[in-house]
Amino acid sequence: MFAINDIPHTRINLLTGEKILVSPHRSKRPWQGQVEDLASDNRPAYDPKCYLCPGNNRADGDHNPQYKAPFVFVNDFSALLKDSRQGEINVSDLLLAETARGICKVIAFSPRHDLTLPEMTVEDLKLVVEVWKGEFQELASHEWIKYIQIFENKGAIMGCSNPHPHGQIWAQNSVPVEVEKEEQRQVEYFDTHGRSLLSAYLEVELQEKVRILIDAEHFVALVPFWASWPYETMIISKRHVQDIRDFSELECEDLAKVLKELTTKYDNIFETSFPYSAGMHQAPVNSGDQGFWHWHMHFYPPLLRSATVKKFMVGYEMLANPQRDITPETAAETIRNQSNIHYKERKV
Amino acid sequence: MFAINDIPHTRINLLTGEKILVSPHRSKRPWQGQVEDLASDNRPAYDPKCYLCPGNNRADGDHNPQYKAPFVFVNDFSALLKDSRQGEINVSDLLLAETARGICKVIAFSPRHDLTLPEMTVEDLKLVVEVWKGEFQELASHEWIKYIQIFENKGAIMGCSNPHPHGQIWAQNSVPVEVEKEEQRQVEYFDTHGRSLLSAYLEVELQEKVRILIDAEHFVALVPFWASWPYETMIISKRHVQDIRDFSELECEDLAKVLKELTTKYDNIFETSFPYSAGMHQAPVNSGDQGFWHWHMHFYPPLLRSATVKKFMVGYEMLANPQRDITPETAAETIRNQSNIHYKERKV
Ligand SMILES: O=P(O)(O)O[C@H]1O[C@H](CO)[C@@H](O)[C@H](O)[C@H]1O
Ligand SMILES: O=P(O)(O)O[C@H]1O[C@H](CO)[C@@H](O)[C@H](O)[C@H]1O
Repeated sequence: MFAINDIPHTRINLLTGEKILVSPHRSKRPWQGQVEDLASDNRPAYDPKCYLCPGNNRADGDHNPQYKAPFVFVNDFSALLKDSRQGEINVSDLLLAETARGICKVIAFSPRHDLTLPEMTVEDLKLVVEVWKGEFQELASHEWIKYIQIFENKGAIMGCSNPHPHGQIWAQNSVPVEVEKEEQRQVEYFDTHGRSLLSAYLEVELQEKVRILIDAEHFVALVPFWASWPYETMIISKRHVQDIRDFSELECEDLAKVLKELTTKYDNIFETSFPYSAGMHQAPVNSGDQGFWHWHMHFYPPLLRSATVKKFMVGYEMLANPQRDITPETAAETIRNQSNIHYKERKV
Repeated sequence: MFAINDIPHTRINLLTGEKILVSPHRSKRPWQGQVEDLASDNRPAYDPKCYLCPGNNRADGDHNPQYKAPFVFVNDFSALLKDSRQGEINVSDLLLAETARGICKVIAFSPRHDLTLPEMTVEDLKLVVEVWKGEFQELASHEWIKYIQIFENKGAIMGCSNPHPHGQIWAQNSVPVEVEKEEQRQVEYFDTHGRSLLSAYLEVELQEKVRILIDAEHFVALVPFWASWPYETMIISKRHVQDIRDFSELECEDLAKVLKELTTKYDNIFETSFPYSAGMHQAPVNSGDQGFWHWHMHFYPPLLRSATVKKFMVGYEMLANPQRDITPETAAETIRNQSNIHYKERKV
């Protein structure tokens, strides 16, 4: 043991096997660097120029219907295409490439241009969860698709180019690298212990309590012991299931509730629409037995000290190890202590 | 084979074994997202408020000498400390942590507040290379130090909090995760082929030529086949050496020249001080036989389309795979075609 809130140390990310460096003594460092622009928080419910709003035209000329529930379409600028012909390059085992096939979709979470997940009702969030489930089901029915990435980039600072609430799904014919890492670690644990890595991990966290944010009926939200972003969190299903297709209606509703609570707490930290990239990690599909996989969802938010000062994962982080100053335990306390009522509602 | 400039594909990073996704057809995507502030390019040669300028006070009260050559000091807000006591945490093999020891230093590259590497003379850059070498030598003489990371964060957009030209060195008692990956791949290759991975790779690149930027006497600058940042590059030593201590005086001078040429070309792309994180990967020290290691230096610059539009490595990239639009070959052509005369000099 050592004083985890004082002494620089490394922690192991159980899901990737990789280290992160924690420097708790360093939080006092003054900041003279870049300050981000504050995104305006006042958007109209409908924006005639938004390519996601109901009834508007999209960049490629398609026309959005007057949708009332979450609306899904194929990304007009897909990074992956369905019809790429098979091919590979191999120069002396040194230059290695192969073609990639996939389908990229966009989901407008709501017809309302001015909302974000925490500002939507649990009922409307449940519709989003159900659309994720339906899309996963449909995409997994194509034999050639091996992995489906459901994610959301929220906020301009996270590369989101349109504030209309939306997420993405990229489905592809191979398993991406971050998923391969988690696969390897989960298989190892499952083969040795006969239970899922995240079931065992969740048990320890529910005992220690310090990193738990929300302990709901079917899901737990926590700051992982190995979090590398300042306010990084994870949602883990209590039941060991491989992917979203397994969630019952009650589970879908509980997930909607936890999503609302977690993102509301996020927004309340700095009284700003809290930016992040979030996404589910689920078992590859059409890839044989994946019984060891345990569904979870990561949130990687960049803010550090205020609505305008973020953590930079640069130099040392890119070349060596992710590094953080405030400890995961301190971050958990800050998030947990936030109200479940959104700051905008309190202000009315 | 397939049309590498048309079809989405994945490439393998030889040094990490990890994939990246290339989507060449996607470069036409319009950008409506975040636009960065342009950093002012007109700084005084001396800034009385800068904590790095000669003769000024630092944040912790120390006083800088009237230095004329590169000036090195221990970081006032070191992420690693020298004296952390040994300790570890292990809860059921699930919560894993251990204390970390290290030394963090800052190098002011020049007394001049207004310069950057490409604006310095080759003679002055050679002094920087020699200071890197001397510091590496000194730090490696401590038996407990296992790895030394030399790097530079350049530009506010890369988390650099002071525009005075400077870099950092973090030396530590363990080998960080990105270095471990490269170690593993290099050992494998060396054991199988009896030569270094990067020697073999360099040979292929010098034949193909399309990704070569600078072919100097002792060093080559190129865009790696697996580059994930839009203008990512690498400098590789022609001689297979483990670390900077092995460089002769001629090699130090040649490295200074290549650094000047590469960073000048970078600045000329968008006629802006080109931001990046750059750093050397070198063999761990005090760690037994490292004969398989081959010295190299990475440059990870974030800009994509202009001086103010960067690539966001977010959602899909964080959860799945790095992804890029313009191909490494196209990027190489753009960089290579830049003048070796800095745009500011041409403007006078
Ligand atoms: O040490 P600096 O320049 O204050 O800080 C910068 O570089 C560090 C090392 O890459 C990062 O951890 C910080 O996030 C970044 O802002
Ligand atoms: O697809 P978008 O929202 O236009 O683009 C955003 O998300 C993508 C997937 O994470 C990234 O590749 C882009 O860099 C980012 O700007």
